[in-house]
Formats: sequence, structure tokens, C-alpha cells
Amino acid sequence: MSDIYERSLIVHEQLRGKISVTPNMPVSTREDLSIAYTPGVARPCEVIAADPSRARSLTIKRNSVAVVTDGSAVLGLGNIGPLAALPVMEGKALLFKQFADIDAWPICLDSQDADEIVRAVQLIAPTFGGINLEDISAPRCFDIEERLQDLGIPVMHDDQHGTAIVLLAALLNAAKVIGKDVASMRIVINGAGAAGTAIARILRCVGQDPDVCIPAAEVIVCDSKGAIHRGRDGLSPQKQELLKYTNRSDTSGDLHHVLDGADVFIGVSRGNLIGPDDVKRMANDAVILAMANPVPEIMPDVAIGAGAAVVGTGRSDFPNQVNNVLAFPGIFRGALEANAPQITPKMKLAAAHALAAAVDRPTADRILPDPLDRTVAPRIAAAVSHAAQG
Amino acid sequence: MSDIYERSLIVHEQLRGKISVTPNMPVSTREDLSIAYTPGVARPCEVIAADPSRARSLTIKRNSVAVVTDGSAVLGLGNIGPLAALPVMEGKALLFKQFADIDAWPICLDSQDADEIVRAVQLIAPTFGGINLEDISAPRCFDIEERLQDLGIPVMHDDQHGTAIVLLAALLNAAKVIGKDVASMRIVINGAGAAGTAIARILRCVGQDPDVCIPAAEVIVCDSKGAIHRGRDGLSPQKQELLKYTNRSDTSGDLHHVLDGADVFIGVSRGNLIGPDDVKRMANDAVILAMANPVPEIMPDVAIGAGAAVVGTGRSDFPNQVNNVLAFPGIFRGALEANAPQITPKMKLAAAHALAAAVDRPTADRILPDPLDRTVAPRIAAAVSHAAQG
Repeated sequence: MSDIYERSLIVHEQLRGKISVTPNMPVSTREDLSIAYTPGVARPCEVIAADPSRARSLTIKRNSVAVVTDGSAVLGLGNIGPLAALPVMEGKALLFKQFADIDAWPICLDSQDADEIVRAVQLIAPTFGGINLEDISAPRCFDIEERLQDLGIPVMHDDQHGTAIVLLAALLNAAKVIGKDVASMRIVINGAGAAGTAIARILRCVGQDPDVCIPAAEVIVCDSKGAIHRGRDGLSPQKQELLKYTNRSDTSGDLHHVLDGADVFIGVSRGNLIGPDDVKRMANDAVILAMANPVPEIMPDVAIGAGAAVVGTGRSDFPNQVNNVLAFPGIFRGALEANAPQITPKMKLAAAHALAAAVDRPTADRILPDPLDRTVAPRIAAAVSHAAQG
Repeated sequence: MSDIYERSLIVHEQLRGKISVTPNMPVSTREDLSIAYTPGVARPCEVIAADPSRARSLTIKRNSVAVVTDGSAVLGLGNIGPLAALPVMEGKALLFKQFADIDAWPICLDSQDADEIVRAVQLIAPTFGGINLEDISAPRCFDIEERLQDLGIPVMHDDQHGTAIVLLAALLNAAKVIGKDVASMRIVINGAGAAGTAIARILRCVGQDPDVCIPAAEVIVCDSKGAIHRGRDGLSPQKQELLKYTNRSDTSGDLHHVLDGADVFIGVSRGNLIGPDDVKRMANDAVILAMANPVPEIMPDVAIGAGAAVVGTGRSDFPNQVNNVLAFPGIFRGALEANAPQITPKMKLAAAHALAAAVDRPTADRILPDPLDRTVAPRIAAAVSHAAQG
């Protein structure tokens, strides 16, 4: 595993950019030039000026997504800034193309001011059919994403919703494996940032139909100070908001205490945070989704040894890799195909259920499809597009 | 000519976007995924965070240009807005790739406020190695371009400088054909917008060496009210600025009057503005560069019939097509190769002289290379890169 980093550096040095722009037509003759550019190009311009909706049938807008970051929360590296975040955004653009044939372009913004980020996205929107916000730190990411929902094109912060969707799919299949129902589960989430918050939110409605909202039995979110409960002083507005739909029992105490009797541990925090005793303290057939990267909150063999029934991580070298690439390409593909102005809760739930259904018969070692499975994105796209139109 | 517009519309409907994003590496295996994306991508990110200059050897920044517009002055269509301008920007990106292997992406900005445009370009700059400003109306384009010169990457408004560079090349070769020297010429420019102003500026130094500044003998700029001269009331700041280096004789009067005895007419205005009598009033062996599109200020056969020695237009169906595609791909290629922070006057002059030199033996019917000649951009790039480093 260790030398994957050096191998990656070498490949990046060789490629000098992981994506290119390719012409969809040649410019070999004077006629080509007159059609692609002046004077002929004036005609499609006039048509769009008269009817802006025609941009979708005449330009890249139909199929293009901006991958927008401010570089404030990049991987496990933290706030490394927009320029250093570019390799991640290129990687994301690469995956958009390979898994969903979407033309994505990185936009690394040289500001970490929420107002400026919102305005910049509004300003660049005409070129794009969708905006994937990426690696923007909490709590600014919540505010930025919300303020962009009326842009007219889908805007989704993938660290929140992509993660939450894959997580819910994993949980739905893990529940099948152990013969429980997600609606009956007591779930502990460790980490109250972008991903933890979005996971808590999506667990408000775990059924396929968001109009008949079946929540998980109990969700408790912990941060570094332990359970987020109503008696805690100094909670941020975001954490107070979380309490509207989490920790109904108002349980307090540290992570280890809160895990007592829990059915599920979801880690979106730091490596090596829980041990075998924690797993033993959980309910029978515990489900562990330990997604800290590169070192999970608990190693799979340790968790299994302590009695966990299903374990997933963010890593490719263990079973059950929880990887956003399972979700975001199909979600945006479906939203673009439906010409959807937003990615609604219904579309997110449809994505999670389609992803879960992509595994024929879930087992403890296979609650999610392989991240490289090319059939997943089209299945999710169909479900998302259907949900957008339904 | 007329149906080129409908043919263009049909091709745009078929392509639904003239450019695509292409992966530079496959993602077929888990190792590919770990190298292109997490966890391996963390390593190039760290390297760039430690040394921002490494972004040029590890990312698309090395080779990417944003084609930025606000849609305020698109072709002859005027202010059709950013969305309707997208087909032109895609066309530009297509030409960047085909002629200079540059990965350009359209950025159509949903604001026509100069402050917002400047700020948006500053914000998106980390992804890009250069910024091509396009189809932004005068006088805002002057201010916007100037305020972006300290961005650290080249920023060039092509409607100004691309046009001026091709024009100067055309003029240098036309002068050879008729056996005059540009430095001895009396030149009338009709049009005081982005292109006309930039042409007047570049004619301050027509020799190869900008340190030994040899201007054209006399340049007079006309607008719709006739010659811009010192006695005119209500001149805008830009037109007052023009008088610092034009119309030394302080000639007044309308275009027809000013053309008396002129060696060169340069039109960047509207079709059918001058007639045979105007050409006859000019000096012997008059040079006419009538670039209004699609109808030139005077038709070539009319100009020739009235005694003009050399005639160029913006059209592909007459000899001597003055087309920006002859300049911008090579200019940006050279600037990117030199890692130049700006496109300086010296680089622009080098581009004009390299373009002129790309025609072996200029004749009245061939003062510029064919716009499709693939050898031109590399020649300009070499000259520009050399000028940047010299």
C-alpha cells in the first residue's frame, strides 16, 4: 500500500495532467472553420439568444459538470488550498468521464470566503449543466450548497451526499445480511463534519419513498467531545440543527459509552479510534463502516475478531469498499438526463436504493458493488432520472 | 455563403457540444483508481502544497487556458449574453486544441460588471495556465484586461491583441508587396472599439525590436463621428488616450476626408462604408484591410477596380483572410512553454513578425498564410517563447 503514493507521483509526472480537451469535429477545411467558428457559429448563438433552453441541444452545457473546490478540506490533508487540490479535482473529472461519460472540468477557486465561492459558482454557471462541490470544509459547505440550490442546475456537495448515499446503500445491504431492518437500528456516527452530517440527514428517511419517511430507530452523532446532545454547551448552529432529528434519547457520554448496544458504527473521523472492546459492547451482529482514510477507525480483522458481522472501509484492499465513485457519476448522469434543476432528497434516496440493488445477493463480504463495475452508474442514472421526473 | 449558417446549426445540433473531456489514463483496475484518485493522489497534492511551482509538472495547469467571456460583444451579434456566446467559446477551444494542442475550456460569466468579471477570473485562475478574454465589449475590455495583468499567468483579450497582431503581419507583408515601408505609411483606422484601439497601439512600434520603437508615420483613428482629434468635445478617456499616439497632424473631418492621400485603410467597423471614390482619393498602391464581418467596409473587387494594390478582409471566400486563428493558438502556446506571467508588447511584436515571415514571398493575393496552415502556430510559439525569455 505504501508505495502507491510514490507510484501516483510518478504517473502524475508522466501525464502532466490527467484529462485533456478533445475536439468533436475536425477543422481541416475552410468549410469546417466556417461551421465551427465564424461566420457559421453565429446561427446557433442566435438560436440560443432567442431561446436559452436550446443551449442544451447545441452546446457542451448538456453534458458538462464543474468540479468546484476551494481546497479547504482535501482528502485527509486538510486545508492545502486550491492549487494543491487540483490533482484530486482532475481525478474526479477523470472518473466522471470513465463511469458516466460526463465532461467535467476542475475549477479550483482562489478564495475560502463563502460569499465569494457562492458568487463565483453563480458566475460560471452558464457553461455547465451541473456543479459538483468538492472538498470544501464544514460548516461553510452547508451554507454554500444551500445558497446555490436555486441556480437552475443541480449543485451537489459530494463529500456530503455522495458519501451519505453510498453509506445508506451499504447499510441497506448490511441489514439484509444480518437479517435486521435499518428502521430498527441504533446507529452511532462518529464525525460531525460534512459527511457525518449528511449521513445523519439521509438516515431520516431510509425507505425508498421519501413521502413515507421511515427513519432509522435512533441515530447519535459524536464529535471529538463525545455525543452531541441537548445538554451540551457551545454547540454550533449546525450541531444544534442535527439534534432536531438525532439523539432522541438525549444520550450523553463519550464514543465508547455511546456504542453500548449500538447496531451500527459509522466512522467518518480518524484512524484507530475504537478497539475490540467497543465492538464487543455493541449489539450482536454489529455493522462497522469505518471510513477514515487511509487508516480506518478500526481495522477489519480486529472488528471481525471482536464479533462484528459486517465491516466496510474506504480502502480497496479490504472487502466492502465505501467509495464515492459508486455514486456521483450516476447521480449527475441521471440529473443531466432529466434536465433536473436540483438533486432532491427523492433523487438521493433513489440513488442509494439503486446502488444497494446493484448487488444481487449481499453477503458479509459484498454489501456494495466493486467500484470499477461499469454497470452501476447507468443503473443509478436511470433511477435518479426517474425520481427527478416522477 | 448564406447556407453556411444553416449548415452550422445542423452540425451543432448533431454534435451537441464541439469539445469533450478525455482521460489521459484508463481507470480499469483498482491500482489505476488508487493512482488517479484516492489514496495515491494525496502525494502529488502534498508536493504542490509544499512547492506551488510543481503544479506545472503534475497537473493540467501546464496546458490549460480558460476562454472567458461575458457575452457582451459576440461576433457581429452584439450583447447576446454569456449562454448564447457559448458556441463561439467552444469554437475557440476547438481551435486552441487543433492548432496548438492547448486544452481550453469555455467560461461564460453571468455578469457584465467589470469588477465581478475581474474577480471571477482571479478566483478561477488556479486551474489555468492562461486566460483568453473573448468578446467583451469596449471600453470595459481595456480596464478588465489591464487589472488582470498581475495574475501571474498570461491574460490576453484576443479581440484586441489577436486582431492587432494579425493586422500588423498583414500590413508588414502588404508593405513588402508595394515596396513601401510601414514606418513611412499614413494609416487610417475606422473603428475605435477593442480591435481599432489595439491596432492603433501596436502601430506605435512596427519594427521587430520594441526597444527601438519605430512607429507608423501617421495613424488616424475614426469613429462614427469622423476623425478622433484634439479639438473634438466629449471624447471618452479611451479616445483621449488614443490621441497620445495618433493623429499628430490633428486632422479633423469625416472618414472620406481623412482618407485623402492615405496609404492604408483599416476597417474594423461596419459593411459598405467606403466606395471607389474613397480608394481613388488614397495614395497610389493603396492597401485596404476591410475586416467588417460578414460584409466588409468595401468589397475586394470594388477596391481593386478603384486602384487598390492589396486588399484583405475577414472572409474566407476572398484572398488575404485576416483571421485571429492565425495568431492566438501560437501566442498562448509560446507563453505557456515559456511559463510567461504576461504577454508583453515584445511577445506580441514577435508574434506579428513571425506570422509575416510565415509567408515566403508575399504577393498581392497572399499577404497572410492560410488560416488552416498547421505550421504557423509552432512558428509563432517559438518566436513568442523566445521573446518571453529574452
